[in-house]
Amino acid sequence: MKKLSLFRILTVLFVASLVFVSCEDDDTQVGIVVEDEEDGINTITDYETPKYVFFFIGDGMSSPQINVAEAALGSSDFSLKSASLKSTSIGSLNIQEFPVTGMQSTFAEDRYITGSAASATALATGKKTTINTISMSGDHTEEYTTMAEMAKAKGMKVGIISSVSIDHATPAAFYAHNETRNNYVEIGQDLLASDFDYFAGGNVRTSKYSGDYSYENFKADAAVNGYSYVSTKSAFDALNSESGKVFATLNILETYSGDGNAMPYAIDLNDGIYNTADNQITLADFTEKGIELLDNDEGFFMMVEGGKIDWACHANDVVSAAMDMIAFDDAIGKALDFYNEHPDETLIIVTGDHECGGLTLGFSATGYETAFELLDYQTESFQTFTGKVQEWASEGTMTFAAAMEEAKDVFGIGDESKGLGLSDYQTELLENAFTRSMTGESAYSDEEMAIIYGYYDPFTVTITHILNNIAGIDWTSYSHTGTPVPVFAIGQGMYEFSGYYDNTDVGKKIIEVADLSE
Amino acid sequence: MKKLSLFRILTVLFVASLVFVSCEDDDTQVGIVVEDEEDGINTITDYETPKYVFFFIGDGMSSPQINVAEAALGSSDFSLKSASLKSTSIGSLNIQEFPVTGMQSTFAEDRYITGSAASATALATGKKTTINTISMSGDHTEEYTTMAEMAKAKGMKVGIISSVSIDHATPAAFYAHNETRNNYVEIGQDLLASDFDYFAGGNVRTSKYSGDYSYENFKADAAVNGYSYVSTKSAFDALNSESGKVFATLNILETYSGDGNAMPYAIDLNDGIYNTADNQITLADFTEKGIELLDNDEGFFMMVEGGKIDWACHANDVVSAAMDMIAFDDAIGKALDFYNEHPDETLIIVTGDHECGGLTLGFSATGYETAFELLDYQTESFQTFTGKVQEWASEGTMTFAAAMEEAKDVFGIGDESKGLGLSDYQTELLENAFTRSMTGESAYSDEEMAIIYGYYDPFTVTITHILNNIAGIDWTSYSHTGTPVPVFAIGQGMYEFSGYYDNTDVGKKIIEVADLSE
Repeated sequence: MKKLSLFRILTVLFVASLVFVSCEDDDTQVGIVVEDEEDGINTITDYETPKYVFFFIGDGMSSPQINVAEAALGSSDFSLKSASLKSTSIGSLNIQEFPVTGMQSTFAEDRYITGSAASATALATGKKTTINTISMSGDHTEEYTTMAEMAKAKGMKVGIISSVSIDHATPAAFYAHNETRNNYVEIGQDLLASDFDYFAGGNVRTSKYSGDYSYENFKADAAVNGYSYVSTKSAFDALNSESGKVFATLNILETYSGDGNAMPYAIDLNDGIYNTADNQITLADFTEKGIELLDNDEGFFMMVEGGKIDWACHANDVVSAAMDMIAFDDAIGKALDFYNEHPDETLIIVTGDHECGGLTLGFSATGYETAFELLDYQTESFQTFTGKVQEWASEGTMTFAAAMEEAKDVFGIGDESKGLGLSDYQTELLENAFTRSMTGESAYSDEEMAIIYGYYDPFTVTITHILNNIAGIDWTSYSHTGTPVPVFAIGQGMYEFSGYYDNTDVGKKIIEVADLSE
Repeated sequence: MKKLSLFRILTVLFVASLVFVSCEDDDTQVGIVVEDEEDGINTITDYETPKYVFFFIGDGMSSPQINVAEAALGSSDFSLKSASLKSTSIGSLNIQEFPVTGMQSTFAEDRYITGSAASATALATGKKTTINTISMSGDHTEEYTTMAEMAKAKGMKVGIISSVSIDHATPAAFYAHNETRNNYVEIGQDLLASDFDYFAGGNVRTSKYSGDYSYENFKADAAVNGYSYVSTKSAFDALNSESGKVFATLNILETYSGDGNAMPYAIDLNDGIYNTADNQITLADFTEKGIELLDNDEGFFMMVEGGKIDWACHANDVVSAAMDMIAFDDAIGKALDFYNEHPDETLIIVTGDHECGGLTLGFSATGYETAFELLDYQTESFQTFTGKVQEWASEGTMTFAAAMEEAKDVFGIGDESKGLGLSDYQTELLENAFTRSMTGESAYSDEEMAIIYGYYDPFTVTITHILNNIAGIDWTSYSHTGTPVPVFAIGQGMYEFSGYYDNTDVGKKIIEVADLSE
């Protein structure tokens, strides 16, 4: 250390007077900016250790997914109703209120394009690992302690919430340690052994249970470990700070495992099997209840995942992705409400684990023009529609003309009165896809198949492609991409999250700012 | 204003003591963080007004373009040589050293997907306008004063540098006011009337001059307006702080206007017509010389555009885009060197005007795998190769087999020893494209043509698509997209650039932080 110069001391006194001035503006100081003379890089060194830490992870969420959610919020649903409105009606998300943004690279230890297990491990522990590994070293010899485990050890309460199954890679990386994300039974055991206070959203992935361990065994084990298993709306509503450890999920996810025991896509919330009172609990509801259950003198750590943004993007269904983005942002709004009551004690971080689908608002054939309002007409997720297509295939009697009537009803495509008339080229694509969906035969080579359908139902994915394309939106992949992911921060220590860094740095920064490590 | 509480005063004293502690670490304070109690949003309120302001604009640069430049720098050229290196060898760009990042939306007043004139106007003036308008209101009734004009009026020196023609939309928006970017002669007159101190990089766009005003007229007018016209390497090297007002360009751009009087793609710098000593001046060289010429007691404002990142992305040529990204980042490195000598007096902002091409590191058929090292084999830009294809078409004797040999030589594709063997499907795509390039006939419908070729030479664009795709990279468009664009900041006032805001806010923030408005 060097001696302080008179200049420096005077600077300090000058600075103190500036703080004084800013206090007259009714402001609270939450940090000091200093410049390191060696590298010229400025950092914020002063903030209160946050007592309440929220970590929101949008699975498959990078800037294009935020982009499309804004467009969706532009006016009613997806409508940017006229050219004159286009410039002013871009919708406002809660994350746009966050004063600090950063950007993270996402690559895994053994692959440039990451997966959710490796990226969630980086976010939860601050350490790189290999594809499919859950909070262990890449060679599976060492368990990485997670920030949620650190928070629990420090005496904070801990909540883990996800819209997909609660033993899926992203939530699992906060409480489990396993050489592969696919060991669902073992991950479930780690969940119950974690002693965390609140698990909520999707159920465990019952369809992956087999052999001598069943879902009933899991529920029994949950009871043994002191968890109240809640799967009705009335029981959920009745939960309060006296409820002890809670495992809360939707009623339907106890019996229906057809979509990986995940919560419904936001677009399907009022549809079919989900449309009962017991299933009308949103990610925002689970988050709000979590705040109520976890709030205590020792503080809390809460991770909330918007997991189906990723799934909708894998399937190249932009409407379902945008609606799940908005549901995720609504959950963030609940944390922002809490922040506004406790600004001196709270930190909220929002980021994604990777981009998915290679989404952009832009498409070769539409060039500079967009027509997002046409997306309004879609009323079901690709998932729900694919269920119908699969029924038609097993029945074996569906005609292309009748299928197009169904497509018109659910997606609007083919309806000229809606501006969704089809070209001969588009009709040919749909007919080829329909044939493939019904018979398994295709007019395309295997390589073309991989490009135009991925692993998805050909008819459904061709419909979403065409609807998205007409609106001026396109995709490059059915997998994740390497696009860097934005980070949003508000509250104590937020300026630490400014800059461009690696996904492991997100984990490291939260652990350091919240003073979680032993 | 409210009265100060004892708590607040104690907080101030505590804060002063913390500053004291951080000063022991040999740091200089450059700002204070305060929290507004009304909206809970924290901002930095204290910094010195920067005397030196650098504004770098990557045309067509958003996070995917940064992404691909990192991959290119991963090891030698594009090589990420082995799986074990993939996780650690992501290259380091100068912009990754910037401590503050932000994110901007880019839409124009009358179109969701913007163009360079409207976006440059937003960046240069802080105000929205319509497509193609240069620093005027959208209805063309009002001229917007630009930050460069404000800086000049304040007594600072001003430099405008671009790798494309210096009267192109982005540089023009800093000195010209016109209802359309296409009025090149009028924009040239505004350039000469600006009295700015340094114009450098591309020449004026001589191919757009017609009627009774010629390039010779422009050069004569430049002399009348006091500009030294410099187009040899020796004259450029001899420029110094006594040189007065300078217009500097490459020698070849006085006679060759075939690529819009722009500097060569970085990948072509040592090729063909550009390979003479007088043309070996890079964007970094123009930037470094600008610092030498503009440095003075009243400070300076310098705008540097990397303009051909956009052009390469329009053409879906990722290698040329990455090489121009790196050339742009090299220029940023010159500003960083200056910043490190003058950290208390300098602000550097780097951003893009919009994304271009819908680029992602990810492709449907390659899924999660990438092979960036295969991009090493490309040795020319799409532009240079297209010149050859056009010659073949006019000669009328080229065979597909011979054309594929040329493609193998320049791009490596079809060379199995390089891991670039072609599938039957890819060969069919190339043969269809070659036929179209030679004869104008096509196997595709007009709509397919727009998707698979855009406005580009079919054979060339199919080659870059296939090379990019094999490497695991794909595009959605030949136009710009709506993807938000990152902002990087270092120096005085940098924390003002944190958060998610509009492109007009970038302009407003620079004007405010540098105290440029009257």
